[in-house]
Amino acid sequence: MTILGASKVSLSSISTPALWKRSSRYNDVNPELFQLRDRKGARYLLSPTHEEEITTLVENVVTSYKQLPLLLYQISRKYRDEPRPRQGLLRTREFLMKDLYTFDATPQDAGETYNKARMAYKNFFDELQIPYLVAEADSGAIGGDLSHEYHFPTPSGEDTILSCDSCSYAVNEELARKSASADLERPTTDRTSYKSWFGLSKDRSHLVEAILPQNIEVCEGAPPQQKAPEINPYLLRTLYPELDLGIEDPLRTFTEYWTAHQSPTTSQATDSATIPQLTRIYDYRVSQASVDAGSFGNNENAAMQRVSEIVGSRRSISQMSIDLARFKDGDKCPECGHHSIKLQQAIELGHTFYLGDRYSKPMNATFTTSPSFQHVDVTAVVGGSGKQTQSAPARKNQAYFQMGCHGIGISRMIAAVADSLADKQGLRWPRVMAPFEAVILATDENQGAAEDVWDLLARPAADGWHPLDAVLDDREDKGLGWKLKDADLIGFPIVIVLGLRFSRQALCEVSIPRLGITLEKVSMDDLRHYIGSRLDKI
Amino acid sequence: MTILGASKVSLSSISTPALWKRSSRYNDVNPELFQLRDRKGARYLLSPTHEEEITTLVENVVTSYKQLPLLLYQISRKYRDEPRPRQGLLRTREFLMKDLYTFDATPQDAGETYNKARMAYKNFFDELQIPYLVAEADSGAIGGDLSHEYHFPTPSGEDTILSCDSCSYAVNEELARKSASADLERPTTDRTSYKSWFGLSKDRSHLVEAILPQNIEVCEGAPPQQKAPEINPYLLRTLYPELDLGIEDPLRTFTEYWTAHQSPTTSQATDSATIPQLTRIYDYRVSQASVDAGSFGNNENAAMQRVSEIVGSRRSISQMSIDLARFKDGDKCPECGHHSIKLQQAIELGHTFYLGDRYSKPMNATFTTSPSFQHVDVTAVVGGSGKQTQSAPARKNQAYFQMGCHGIGISRMIAAVADSLADKQGLRWPRVMAPFEAVILATDENQGAAEDVWDLLARPAADGWHPLDAVLDDREDKGLGWKLKDADLIGFPIVIVLGLRFSRQALCEVSIPRLGITLEKVSMDDLRHYIGSRLDKI
Repeated sequence: MTILGASKVSLSSISTPALWKRSSRYNDVNPELFQLRDRKGARYLLSPTHEEEITTLVENVVTSYKQLPLLLYQISRKYRDEPRPRQGLLRTREFLMKDLYTFDATPQDAGETYNKARMAYKNFFDELQIPYLVAEADSGAIGGDLSHEYHFPTPSGEDTILSCDSCSYAVNEELARKSASADLERPTTDRTSYKSWFGLSKDRSHLVEAILPQNIEVCEGAPPQQKAPEINPYLLRTLYPELDLGIEDPLRTFTEYWTAHQSPTTSQATDSATIPQLTRIYDYRVSQASVDAGSFGNNENAAMQRVSEIVGSRRSISQMSIDLARFKDGDKCPECGHHSIKLQQAIELGHTFYLGDRYSKPMNATFTTSPSFQHVDVTAVVGGSGKQTQSAPARKNQAYFQMGCHGIGISRMIAAVADSLADKQGLRWPRVMAPFEAVILATDENQGAAEDVWDLLARPAADGWHPLDAVLDDREDKGLGWKLKDADLIGFPIVIVLGLRFSRQALCEVSIPRLGITLEKVSMDDLRHYIGSRLDKI
Repeated sequence: MTILGASKVSLSSISTPALWKRSSRYNDVNPELFQLRDRKGARYLLSPTHEEEITTLVENVVTSYKQLPLLLYQISRKYRDEPRPRQGLLRTREFLMKDLYTFDATPQDAGETYNKARMAYKNFFDELQIPYLVAEADSGAIGGDLSHEYHFPTPSGEDTILSCDSCSYAVNEELARKSASADLERPTTDRTSYKSWFGLSKDRSHLVEAILPQNIEVCEGAPPQQKAPEINPYLLRTLYPELDLGIEDPLRTFTEYWTAHQSPTTSQATDSATIPQLTRIYDYRVSQASVDAGSFGNNENAAMQRVSEIVGSRRSISQMSIDLARFKDGDKCPECGHHSIKLQQAIELGHTFYLGDRYSKPMNATFTTSPSFQHVDVTAVVGGSGKQTQSAPARKNQAYFQMGCHGIGISRMIAAVADSLADKQGLRWPRVMAPFEAVILATDENQGAAEDVWDLLARPAADGWHPLDAVLDDREDKGLGWKLKDADLIGFPIVIVLGLRFSRQALCEVSIPRLGITLEKVSMDDLRHYIGSRLDKI
């Protein structure tokens, strides 16, 4: 954040519905927002993010393009009423987050700032020395047009990331797109079994039935798959954005809802939003004729009969030729065409968003433009894919701030890294996350020498040695064996022992668990070089 | 905190009523607690302090006396639904606090820890280089027997601190005690005018009428006072702890309450707590005879008539000879007897509490004692005045943790210091609070020399020079005059200018506003010594 030129701020965790209404993000019944009232009955909420607050702050302080770009960040607690908090610090209702907000005068400038922030994130995750994936991402509730997710692959992760072993393609499954439908060849063999998947819109009016083949053998030259393809619900939501993927048993919910709410007849209906309707969409491998002949094997025909009564003639069939199945290992990469797609469970540790005027426009946050400023539709320099347009406020010589926001889930990151790198002996912190980079342990007789080692490693020196953040375990009531175990448990990246070997041969013993180095004998003269040359790998 | 050997923790801001009930501190209608519910309707609260959480944490981790003492601190946001948030960061509903919790095996150990924490607080406030008062304090809602308040005197303060110019006496007005009643001489002159003050108990049953003289001239040799004495409500609350000082117009509240709630007759009454009663207490300067003769000039005789009807015979008169008036400047010091009491408005910046087993006992937080441990009544070594007893848990070889808690209001401290030390030119940060200790400003031609000055002051040196946290203002689009003004506004403790004087005579100009030093000419050779010798005064 410092290298980016960002300044640190500290915004209140308590915000108000009134402020959130200005960005149209407030929803009275949003179950993820913790809401409360004060002693006078005034309403408040615990902020899950701070776009509204920071936009208000900047709007009040920045009046001219001369004060831009402005980058502000904070490290603070955020609140989200998660339905299912889980796995310790991985998904919690109170969490620690680093959030950066950027303000620029033009989409071009904002694009440059976005790319700088992306690079800073890349450098940050590189420095952590943990594996990570950068995925193009669904910007979800935050809004905006372009974003990247930074994922830590781990079996306990809740996200599924697709990446290609042949090219740089990486994307969250929720955003993954198969090849364009033109690529799809309708299979020639007969399919004998089908399955319906149902989705329902938030207002309960629109039921979507997606039909997929079952028991197919081979698709497009990929290795034989025993499992039938699964539906890709995110693809359906892309096609029908009104779908609420959180509804359990959409078919039953639909019939029960419309049985309870008197279904208007077609002739009386005036408000189309409240009329029940059905859309059917077929996977390209499904022969529509065989489905319509009633040959698909789901057990929901009684329910479908009820649906037919409810929707009457308000049913339609999508004519798209589309692959509705989820990606599988070995699927064809949409980018390079090789069958080298790999699916990995992962935890989202960070997120960069290009927001444009998503917040500044509804909140009317403007600044005075430079004399040369022109409101034009422009394509911003944001990784190629983001086309940004800039609308003009009513007041002359004013423009909306072009914004970005960039978060790192700190408490989650600590939990994910601790969980994944730990072994039976203890934690295995990356050097930049460890409480100390190195620990020095010694037998009683070598305590003096241990202090010399500390001086050698932890103090700056004329030769440009960068001091290690080292600690000397001088607890008097513990033996060397106990201290060794404790050091393992705590997970210091580097453990330096001055034991018998030091008494006899003046050799330190160095362990660097993440590099598989155990009690390697190193003389004091070689210590700096031995450790220094391995620092950037741990 | 580091010097005390305390470890840093980070506890959730969200707590639960269930936990707070374990310490008997939870009150369903406590208007200071922000309370909320999650999506499932479960109840939560935003913690104003963390005694319950830390006691639970330690109870689960510490099993033996061998793990004690244990000191844990955090720096985090706290929440209190203040009725009157005011003066920016001085009194807010969300605030930043440093809180330290201490756990010891015995009251003696806890007393030693308490005194160490007191010393750490003293050192901390000394280092800030701001005036402060240490007052014995009312421990209020936190509980416990002994505590000290750390106050910053400022006219905008909400507390009133009494201190003595002749001795070390300092106490919050709420706790101040005048000399024992034996010292009081009943004045011989007739008093012609009196005033009643009323107080009412929380349950509305007990009305206290305190009667004070008006228009008196001289008391006990103090300088002549034109103003009539004011009642000291805190003294009344000490005598009648059930009094609720927050009730507006207690007399009217009492008569209205008992007019609405049918007043039980004496013969039918069974529950004494709900019977209305009146107690009258006289200042020692009041002649009881003249009051009873109806000569005191308040306008509340009609109301008092109604009170008489309500209380019937349930009235009593205190026989204490007591000074009911608030302290005034020049009053007699209860400690040394000199007439050198001074009243100052102040802001509470910190608080140390000796808690004993206030939390560990109701929460049954125990540890296994040492073989030599004995449960005895002991007087702890806590500044002399605190007598601590230690009760024994039911289980053998177990004892309750002996605790302390110690807080500093960080956001409030920043506001108080900024507000009080600022002058017309800008802020005047104490060196340890300033964002940087020094700023270096130069004309264009002296930029190179300015960097040399930075190297000289901000880098460690072999002669033991302790590097200054200095910043070089190298903004290219601003002139020296603008930068000087900006440095004043920001409030750097030390400003070093390399201007015309440097170009001509190689002399820096040093300003240290808090010492009244303005553009003092100092050569680069003398710079370290000049600044170094003044550091501990700013």
